[in-house]
Amino acid sequence: MKSDLLHDGLAVVNVGPEMFVESVRAGGAPVAHVEWRPAGDGDPRLAWLLAQLAGDPDDPESPGSRIDRANQTAVERMLAARAVLVDVALRADEVWPECWVDGKKTLTHAGAPIPWTGMCDPMKGTLIGAALHEGWAKTPEEAADRLARGEVSFIPNHDLGAVGPMSGTISPSMPVFVVRNSTGGNTAYCNFSEGIGRVLRFGAYGPEVIDRLKWIATVLAPAIKTALAALPGGVDLKAIQSQALLMGDEVHSRNAAATALFHMAIAGALAGSAFDRARARAALDFIAGNSQFFLNLSMAASKAIMDAAHGVAHSSIVTAIARNGVTTAIRVSGLGRRWFEAPSETPAGLYFPGFRQEDANADLGDSAICETAGYGGQSLAASPALVQLVGGSVAEAIAYSREMYHVTWARNPVMSLPNLEFAGAPAGIDVRKVIDTGIRPVLTTGIAHRQAGVGQIGAGIVRAPMACFTPALAALAETLGVA
Amino acid sequence: MKSDLLHDGLAVVNVGPEMFVESVRAGGAPVAHVEWRPAGDGDPRLAWLLAQLAGDPDDPESPGSRIDRANQTAVERMLAARAVLVDVALRADEVWPECWVDGKKTLTHAGAPIPWTGMCDPMKGTLIGAALHEGWAKTPEEAADRLARGEVSFIPNHDLGAVGPMSGTISPSMPVFVVRNSTGGNTAYCNFSEGIGRVLRFGAYGPEVIDRLKWIATVLAPAIKTALAALPGGVDLKAIQSQALLMGDEVHSRNAAATALFHMAIAGALAGSAFDRARARAALDFIAGNSQFFLNLSMAASKAIMDAAHGVAHSSIVTAIARNGVTTAIRVSGLGRRWFEAPSETPAGLYFPGFRQEDANADLGDSAICETAGYGGQSLAASPALVQLVGGSVAEAIAYSREMYHVTWARNPVMSLPNLEFAGAPAGIDVRKVIDTGIRPVLTTGIAHRQAGVGQIGAGIVRAPMACFTPALAALAETLGVA
Repeated sequence: MKSDLLHDGLAVVNVGPEMFVESVRAGGAPVAHVEWRPAGDGDPRLAWLLAQLAGDPDDPESPGSRIDRANQTAVERMLAARAVLVDVALRADEVWPECWVDGKKTLTHAGAPIPWTGMCDPMKGTLIGAALHEGWAKTPEEAADRLARGEVSFIPNHDLGAVGPMSGTISPSMPVFVVRNSTGGNTAYCNFSEGIGRVLRFGAYGPEVIDRLKWIATVLAPAIKTALAALPGGVDLKAIQSQALLMGDEVHSRNAAATALFHMAIAGALAGSAFDRARARAALDFIAGNSQFFLNLSMAASKAIMDAAHGVAHSSIVTAIARNGVTTAIRVSGLGRRWFEAPSETPAGLYFPGFRQEDANADLGDSAICETAGYGGQSLAASPALVQLVGGSVAEAIAYSREMYHVTWARNPVMSLPNLEFAGAPAGIDVRKVIDTGIRPVLTTGIAHRQAGVGQIGAGIVRAPMACFTPALAALAETLGVA
Repeated sequence: MKSDLLHDGLAVVNVGPEMFVESVRAGGAPVAHVEWRPAGDGDPRLAWLLAQLAGDPDDPESPGSRIDRANQTAVERMLAARAVLVDVALRADEVWPECWVDGKKTLTHAGAPIPWTGMCDPMKGTLIGAALHEGWAKTPEEAADRLARGEVSFIPNHDLGAVGPMSGTISPSMPVFVVRNSTGGNTAYCNFSEGIGRVLRFGAYGPEVIDRLKWIATVLAPAIKTALAALPGGVDLKAIQSQALLMGDEVHSRNAAATALFHMAIAGALAGSAFDRARARAALDFIAGNSQFFLNLSMAASKAIMDAAHGVAHSSIVTAIARNGVTTAIRVSGLGRRWFEAPSETPAGLYFPGFRQEDANADLGDSAICETAGYGGQSLAASPALVQLVGGSVAEAIAYSREMYHVTWARNPVMSLPNLEFAGAPAGIDVRKVIDTGIRPVLTTGIAHRQAGVGQIGAGIVRAPMACFTPALAALAETLGVA
């Protein structure tokens, strides 16, 4: 840009719409283009709200200054949070007995609440599989019938302090990871990774899927629980996430290093225990064979971290992004349990052979909790290797992280991005900044086939819809008496 | 550069010595500097040899064309080589009985042959420790006396198909890794990592050092041997090296990911075996606590790969770089077992608190075998995180790898460098190109204190001396009847 502007004679700076650049250039004048959008993307009501909610250094009692202080508190809690895997609960109904009290039937799912009739096919398949797994039906048809008739309640994972990838379902007999934030005192949960291929979370419900769920409950979960019993401090998941960012993971769509570090953290304890030898080997080999095993742990850690930042009055920090396969929904620290949702977009990325964009389901799963904690798309610069899976160049991956600094509150000193000369990762998405800049948070994600049970067909990148953020801003203004 | 040259009026291009640039610039003219050095750094005899040894597409029987064909063969063997950890030999004297036949006493060491009187202090300390470990003396003084009197023979590791980091010593009761190149049929060996701190390889020989050596021989080595017995295919070290390059390691001075991947490869098999539980845990925890554990395996793998490329008549590919703490020595594929050596330089890097450059020993150890195989300094672009240990910027790390393409024969398709958009790593250092460009191979390295037993005091970067390469070129010319 500099050289253009320093050229002798006429020089043009074009601000905003890029369409004028070419005609000026064609006329022979050097032209520099500056990307600019009006705040709130041109909506005068949003621009006016933004203006009123901006921090004002001269008026500490202005609404914007109150938001700033609240955000500082929220982000400090986020940065101070720990995330330690302390236990495995062998059954979900031990953790949330109220969901299954007196024969009540409940299944959890990803994203914001959604009725059976509105669900995408993969999520329906997952719930059918979970019902079969629990013995609530003998055939998929019977299960679908019972689910459609309302015999089973559905509840978002987030309402239980839990998260789950893709459809995200937890049923009463499933084991869950127990992750504690010892500085904040809060606890988060996640179900177990089933590996790849035909798996429940993508809506598959064949016998091999149910068999694997039984094996996870009876072998894998007890194995990890046994190892944890021999590790008095638990396993520090946040430390693993931080190390993995130096090792090519962004700990959302790539967890190769984090999985190896987790394996290394528990294998000695398991090998030293009295746990059955053949089962110990099977459990360790299962983790070793599944480079995304750590995703569920990264999600639970991110949930523990972000719940610490939730509930600070007037804070505009996003504490959850979750997708139910139809809508993308966000929660905001100062706005309680309310979801702000908008139709999900379909990820752009690379497809496995034989599949294409038309086969893709809309964005799905609770895993975008990772982005709220600064991982995934926010830390894409950490993961050049992910580019091979989702498409694009390493330079683009780095550019995504640079862009995310414009919508976040702080830099996380314990999350270094080597390719940005070890700058701290973007931390704390601020609803105001998203609207002000027009830059939507980037999410890395797996892509599900839109038919139940086909499974993962690719991986890519998607952005959270702007329409999640604009009503959140209005709601925030309301809490401050601004209109 | 472009903008300078396009400036109106006088523009100057300065080729070669940079000293003229400032005076031209001071005179007000734009000046572009082009780095250039005469081939052979201005030595007319070397330049003449280089000219005669350059490949000539019009004359397939020219000396240079014969070297080119030999190099192609050597590098193809290198790229085709596998490196599989197939076994642990519990005692070195099982592998090389000839070294200890009839009560003969032998100790190995890193680098080219060197007499006791010429050795650096750390290497003397290591040999004293090895003699104590073997029970050849009761006190360090007695050990030093026996070693000085010639009661023990010294032999370079490389002469046994082995390698060892820093002083590199192998004694008869020490276990060694057995690494097989199944495509070439050759086998390479390395001793075990002792972890960091006060360790034999840096010249420490206190009781805790000897105790740890006994524990390695009686617990760690049998544990890994037991795991390997339950892994019929062995552990594919080259595959681990390739994955680790995508995970922030250059598998010489940083092996955090490779160590975790190796741990993950053996832990299941060990946990599933009948090996004593407490010892299994101790062995796995030892590896988990030592992020450089894989270095010794990376070295053995690199030795297996480079021995495959060795012995191709007339090839100018460097198949070993090794340092005995006084000299740096290279071996060349077409020049047999001859070492070409020159005084070692002292690495530049970062020092642990309390130490400085003056405390550093000259470059030491067989670990530069990694660079000959394309790892370490050659693949520094893969390891932004290493910059935190050795100093410099990520951009400089990337620049080192780019530079190394100028002295290498090929790009290794199974070794991708993410930060170079997944280009294959530089493969096969060509003696001719080193002399022609004046670019010396970059080595990453640990820095030893120059006094025995103080241990590692830092880590850094060093270059192989040009004086290793120039006599090698002359020797190569001789084999082709060129003078």
